[in-house]
Amino acid sequence: MKEYFIGIDLGGTKIAGVITDLKGNIIKENIIKTMAEYGDKAIVLRIINLIEDLIISSGKTLEDIRAVGIGSPGPLDPKRGIIITTPNLPFENFDIITPIKEKFNVPVFLDNDANVAAIGEYTLGAGKNTKNMVYITVSTGIGGGAIINGKIYRGNTFNALEIGHMTLLPDGPKCNCGNYGCFEALASGTAISKRAEEAVESGRDTSLLNYFKITSYEVFKEAEKGDSVSRHIIDSSLEYLGIGIANIITLFDPEVIILGGGVMKAGQIIFDRIKEVVDQRCFKNMASACKIVPSALGEKSGVIGAIALAMMETE
Amino acid sequence: MKEYFIGIDLGGTKIAGVITDLKGNIIKENIIKTMAEYGDKAIVLRIINLIEDLIISSGKTLEDIRAVGIGSPGPLDPKRGIIITTPNLPFENFDIITPIKEKFNVPVFLDNDANVAAIGEYTLGAGKNTKNMVYITVSTGIGGGAIINGKIYRGNTFNALEIGHMTLLPDGPKCNCGNYGCFEALASGTAISKRAEEAVESGRDTSLLNYFKITSYEVFKEAEKGDSVSRHIIDSSLEYLGIGIANIITLFDPEVIILGGGVMKAGQIIFDRIKEVVDQRCFKNMASACKIVPSALGEKSGVIGAIALAMMETE
Repeated sequence: MKEYFIGIDLGGTKIAGVITDLKGNIIKENIIKTMAEYGDKAIVLRIINLIEDLIISSGKTLEDIRAVGIGSPGPLDPKRGIIITTPNLPFENFDIITPIKEKFNVPVFLDNDANVAAIGEYTLGAGKNTKNMVYITVSTGIGGGAIINGKIYRGNTFNALEIGHMTLLPDGPKCNCGNYGCFEALASGTAISKRAEEAVESGRDTSLLNYFKITSYEVFKEAEKGDSVSRHIIDSSLEYLGIGIANIITLFDPEVIILGGGVMKAGQIIFDRIKEVVDQRCFKNMASACKIVPSALGEKSGVIGAIALAMMETE
Repeated sequence: MKEYFIGIDLGGTKIAGVITDLKGNIIKENIIKTMAEYGDKAIVLRIINLIEDLIISSGKTLEDIRAVGIGSPGPLDPKRGIIITTPNLPFENFDIITPIKEKFNVPVFLDNDANVAAIGEYTLGAGKNTKNMVYITVSTGIGGGAIINGKIYRGNTFNALEIGHMTLLPDGPKCNCGNYGCFEALASGTAISKRAEEAVESGRDTSLLNYFKITSYEVFKEAEKGDSVSRHIIDSSLEYLGIGIANIITLFDPEVIILGGGVMKAGQIIFDRIKEVVDQRCFKNMASACKIVPSALGEKSGVIGAIALAMMETE
């Protein structure tokens, strides 16, 4: 009867999978290791095994599956189902959907993880009942996806919303991409921990000295406890986060901006500061019309997003 | 037989109008003064007279007119046909389309001048045969409009692509909008002439001293002749222009960016410098896939854009 979807969230260290009903309710879920070191074909086999496990353990058969959605790091070509290249996975112009399609004889859809999360929030999360929304994830990098007039907006080369690489400070710190002053070189989790490590190395008096390894989590924690170096780092990073989001509002004029990713775990302090900066930098009517809210799907945004991709493409 | 369109380009000092066939070929055109000092209703009457003149002078009747398109400075509400407010015209939440609709009993459509120019380039100009494109006008300010999946993208409050107010330099010069370091405070014609005036006032040795009033045109001219102060101003402004355009590519990943507005008259030097900056700041595949070209409609982008708006809305 084809009343179930399968969603796969492919990452550098693990692959998560779910089987859901047509409304996106999870029937079974599972997480396996990626084992990227065994190469591209081995990963496809592991995904195929994961899909079989999900079907069998939920008491279903292949005839019950309407479609499979896959979210993967990019850049990739969603039309041809090809992962072009990606830092933590052994893919080079690799067609990941044909072997899965052929194995199961069901439609398989691929998109990059930020787009998949955007589709997930739009269909089943914090973006329900909107027409135009932008999803932004802030973790080691900064990525994004936009729903425009009810559809995912992929752009000409499928790279739209590469928001982590928007220039916000032309003479700012060097980004991994080679450019200077990119959004993610100023406001990502990596930017926060890098600035903290620089402060420690330069001998500043800070409670960050107590840590062997500093992630953005520790910097937020010490800032909250009153450490002035940490406070300064967080304040400056959140200002840039606010500026980047203000630019997204100025350009996309969306109904809602949904924020996900590890850095968002720091909670309300982030939203308060972003709102402050957005109010300073955007036109009043645009700023007040645009809600800025946390992801509703949270850590499930990858798998549920993959389900939502399969839903959207088979509508 | 309804085989003609009328396009109106409403400006602070003049109102231009054209009547065209269904392909956008101009049959007759006319330009009258706005006479904004006589108030909102007087402007509507002048537009009505202009439309009547265009119909009569081209030997047509009201029965020949399929629709009227109007481009106006914004912000405005294209759905309700209301001009919300605009600096150089006496409108406050003024319904400009109802009186014209009632007078002629034809459909009347309104949009802001940047969107109208974008629709014009998409339908009849440099954006033909694309699906995703961005139009940018650089003159006293910087504005823009985007076609996404073949449709003008207006956003939630109809203010999408307020690109002049994207922050590019957080501690940069103050913009008219009250924010600091906006794109148009760094790269518009006004920004260029303002920087030139500051250079003159500060006693710099420059050939700009020969002018009583300096617009961006004089600064480009003196830069070309070798004046080092002018060169520096132009180079810095064009770098910001390139950064702003690089951000648009990074976010919208369009097939083409079309540049219009008075500053573009300086010609190839602008495109060369923009390309250089875009290549530095964008991902290679996105930069090389996106053409950056001059407006094909030029000074007619307002009236022909209004025609294209009428075409698009009556399709």
